[in-house]
Amino acid sequence: MLLDLESIPLFDHHCHGVVRRDLDRAAFEALLTEADGAGPLGGSMFDTQAGLAVRRWCAPVLDLSPHAEPDAYLARRAELGASEVNRRFLAAAGLSGLCVDTGYLPESMLEPAELGKLAGAPAHEVVRLETVAEQVASEGMSVGAFTGEVRARLAARAATAAGAKSIAAYRAGLELAGERPRDNEVAQAAARLLREADRAMAGRSAPPRVCDEVMHRFLVWCAVDLGLPVQFHVGYGDSETDLRRGDPLLLTDLLRAVQPTGVPMMLLHNYPFHRQAGYLAQVFPHVFVDVGLATHNLGHRAPALVAELLELAPFGKVLYSSDAFGLAEFHHLGALLFRRALARYLREGVADDAWTEHDARRLAGLVAEGNARRAYGR
Amino acid sequence: MLLDLESIPLFDHHCHGVVRRDLDRAAFEALLTEADGAGPLGGSMFDTQAGLAVRRWCAPVLDLSPHAEPDAYLARRAELGASEVNRRFLAAAGLSGLCVDTGYLPESMLEPAELGKLAGAPAHEVVRLETVAEQVASEGMSVGAFTGEVRARLAARAATAAGAKSIAAYRAGLELAGERPRDNEVAQAAARLLREADRAMAGRSAPPRVCDEVMHRFLVWCAVDLGLPVQFHVGYGDSETDLRRGDPLLLTDLLRAVQPTGVPMMLLHNYPFHRQAGYLAQVFPHVFVDVGLATHNLGHRAPALVAELLELAPFGKVLYSSDAFGLAEFHHLGALLFRRALARYLREGVADDAWTEHDARRLAGLVAEGNARRAYGR
Amino acid sequence: MLLDLESIPLFDHHCHGVVRRDLDRAAFEALLTEADGAGPLGGSMFDTQAGLAVRRWCAPVLDLSPHAEPDAYLARRAELGASEVNRRFLAAAGLSGLCVDTGYLPESMLEPAELGKLAGAPAHEVVRLETVAEQVASEGMSVGAFTGEVRARLAARAATAAGAKSIAAYRAGLELAGERPRDNEVAQAAARLLREADRAMAGRSAPPRVCDEVMHRFLVWCAVDLGLPVQFHVGYGDSETDLRRGDPLLLTDLLRAVQPTGVPMMLLHNYPFHRQAGYLAQVFPHVFVDVGLATHNLGHRAPALVAELLELAPFGKVLYSSDAFGLAEFHHLGALLFRRALARYLREGVADDAWTEHDARRLAGLVAEGNARRAYGR
Repeated sequence: MLLDLESIPLFDHHCHGVVRRDLDRAAFEALLTEADGAGPLGGSMFDTQAGLAVRRWCAPVLDLSPHAEPDAYLARRAELGASEVNRRFLAAAGLSGLCVDTGYLPESMLEPAELGKLAGAPAHEVVRLETVAEQVASEGMSVGAFTGEVRARLAARAATAAGAKSIAAYRAGLELAGERPRDNEVAQAAARLLREADRAMAGRSAPPRVCDEVMHRFLVWCAVDLGLPVQFHVGYGDSETDLRRGDPLLLTDLLRAVQPTGVPMMLLHNYPFHRQAGYLAQVFPHVFVDVGLATHNLGHRAPALVAELLELAPFGKVLYSSDAFGLAEFHHLGALLFRRALARYLREGVADDAWTEHDARRLAGLVAEGNARRAYGR
Repeated sequence: MLLDLESIPLFDHHCHGVVRRDLDRAAFEALLTEADGAGPLGGSMFDTQAGLAVRRWCAPVLDLSPHAEPDAYLARRAELGASEVNRRFLAAAGLSGLCVDTGYLPESMLEPAELGKLAGAPAHEVVRLETVAEQVASEGMSVGAFTGEVRARLAARAATAAGAKSIAAYRAGLELAGERPRDNEVAQAAARLLREADRAMAGRSAPPRVCDEVMHRFLVWCAVDLGLPVQFHVGYGDSETDLRRGDPLLLTDLLRAVQPTGVPMMLLHNYPFHRQAGYLAQVFPHVFVDVGLATHNLGHRAPALVAELLELAPFGKVLYSSDAFGLAEFHHLGALLFRRALARYLREGVADDAWTEHDARRLAGLVAEGNARRAYGR
Repeated sequence: MLLDLESIPLFDHHCHGVVRRDLDRAAFEALLTEADGAGPLGGSMFDTQAGLAVRRWCAPVLDLSPHAEPDAYLARRAELGASEVNRRFLAAAGLSGLCVDTGYLPESMLEPAELGKLAGAPAHEVVRLETVAEQVASEGMSVGAFTGEVRARLAARAATAAGAKSIAAYRAGLELAGERPRDNEVAQAAARLLREADRAMAGRSAPPRVCDEVMHRFLVWCAVDLGLPVQFHVGYGDSETDLRRGDPLLLTDLLRAVQPTGVPMMLLHNYPFHRQAGYLAQVFPHVFVDVGLATHNLGHRAPALVAELLELAPFGKVLYSSDAFGLAEFHHLGALLFRRALARYLREGVADDAWTEHDARRLAGLVAEGNARRAYGR
């Protein structure tokens, strides 16, 4: 009997909300990949692996034939309305749990509880560290009070949150030093952030943004001290990232420093550095990896991605995430493509007699759900 | 019906001339890969993917059986003579257009017009930026006149040229800053180059070489100001390159700075950083990518290369180039291997129901020719 | 007739000793991958490609069924005893020669001669450069005598040793400058090392460790001057390495500087930078590459690894190594997986008519044995 993972429940340990509004073609294409949208030189974003996969796998969920043309797809999507579309894709994902990063909300999106209800599974929050620091700074704190207040806020959130998230890769980069920052370093970094906040309150600059190696690192250690697993954006992202500074190997010193605490460190996305991430997951006992975001953006190539991740990463250290953001389609598509990629990989191994069907089922269970439940204690 | 791209016309947006002389085995092997030739430790360059592919696919064009032995191949090549050999391979390539980089001529090679005539397709020139600057410097210019003269020469060439080419990767590296160089910076860089030129004229040094971040960057902006698409050597090259400095991610800041102009930026070769290049092609609307040079050097593995490039690179942003240089074989081999790789990739997707045959044909047309015509306006 | 390499003799140009003692499950798992062993978060190291491959391929050598469960495997291993286990796996490897790195011995291991006897093949020593320098330093030398003594020791070892090994990647990193270190630089580096040795002799610090760009580089040039091929640890290793500093491209300047001597430089392991290593093997006539260590750690994925290495690396520049360390299993497993990966790659090329069966056999012979014999003169 063929190994079939079509209905295996997945624990999505990192995803985001989806938009509540209906989307025209330009708005949909702007959310379809990490590009800002279609352009005069490059043509439609539907002509990508993500776009082709949406047409193939999402159209049937909206009662269309596979491979529906983009305009037909968007017309049907509008006809059903955003609520119904969101309901269908979350239900189709087949999740047994979700961890939702609530730290980036350019517009109103479904809350974790709403996502969980549609998915029929418990939804947990992931606290974005930099957002907490920026909120505290915006409230006009003194330097002396800042770090205490940040710790207090995080402690309060940690009572229910499943983990924390760092976006250092998008700001100062992942080259975080291998030691706790000293108090005076943190105070200096806090002072800078608070000055920015002052200027912003006076209408003289944009809201304060954490973009400082010391502050990113301080926040990571705050989460570690609370025992909160820390998720790191790594690798692939939009044009605002500097992909070179998102290489997971830059985290080596920090990972080594955190190792004695035993707090799990989660490397998200990782493409095109997923082999490097797999190495870290093997040699550091507290490091976990996934290929969220990349999975649906690679579409038809997702099996190659999963196979490369599983070269060095132990089966006990690989997690599933969709990193769905904005479009409900990606909650479904990420799950579908990951299940199919994992199944293909494990089936080929069985066919080649590399492992048994029994082992394949057991290992699939670890990756789909078991590892996340163990690491997050959920 | 199987998708067949065997006769789809290709627009080769980056290639070079081929030698006019007959080649003995040592001379042929010296042009066969990016190595200087066969060596006592490593054996024949025919024992490479490029060498095996030449024997497989080029021998029949010379009326030999596939897999002809190297000496038999070279004997037949000599018997036909270079002119006939060049004629056959250019005709076999099946091109609908060529852009020819004329900036590197260690010996007399076929001119663009000659290549175009043999290929039966329009041939356009690509101006090598550093070569123009070095020529101007060699003429004994004042610092004050230098930049104006460079701009004037490029403007004159731009009247007919399809694009410009930067070899910063071979010199100062691709880490070019994300802003126009200031006038005084350019003047200083020009002064250095002109001093070199003076010493060379006095017979006290080699001809002047642009090898200065500011000068490379100045030249790129000259091309951008003329609206000329800029091709960058990226990644794979000969032993004179420092491959670490040829990582396309090093160009991120420059690409971001050029983005508002809308002038296309073309990343050539890219191997082994082709996935990184695919990311840039997705998130920057003016960035295009290819895997020229790598395609024929990977030979039998070209399908894996093309599949990896197409993970993140939108189908609307991928171009074909051979980067053929020296040997006419590569005009044929690059085209043949690229067509086969693209066809295999698209056929497998159809077989897996990842996209339709109709979409596959349309997307093949973009990559083969449509994108280049749109980006270069030819 | 299918190309069958199951019994082709392999020359293992880089391996280590194996332990003499029996191993319980924790001790076995600690040697199974580059992780320190099983952990509470990540589960068993048997749930890795290496672990699954041991169960599949090594169990039958111990008279068990393929895919034996870990505990059953270890029970049978204990029942046979370490000596018998070592005997079986070395014999099963099918080697025609071994080069054994004797520089890292955390416990008593089989000596080269013992390995050779079990393998039924000549075993040669590879001298670890840093170990020699540390031994000399520990003997309480003057700075003035140090370099002469190091050179003398290496010269004595060179009389029988097949090559030298540098672990710069584990210490100062591979970014070694492209010139011989000057005498005064070496003297300064020697003085530092000797001061460390003094403190260690006084019981005030750990034994001296070479961890200095100049000293690593000096040692490499000592080997070059003796005509000894130099092996470099590159890429994949345990958690003590900093993988970013193990990128083979960091060696570019040094390789260029050594090129005129013609002394072979061997890049070991290389994963995940094996494509970069393949590039170096193509463009530098004295550079050879392998994918030891990675081969058995990738297990079922070894064919993908070998195929990627052979993209740019000429067939005349690829070597076989197991990098087996500690567990005798890896002498067998490395050889078996490499043979199968190479055979699959070559067979697929024959099936696709990319090369002939005749060429495939010839190229297999180069990689399996011929290149190593030519490079090491053995």
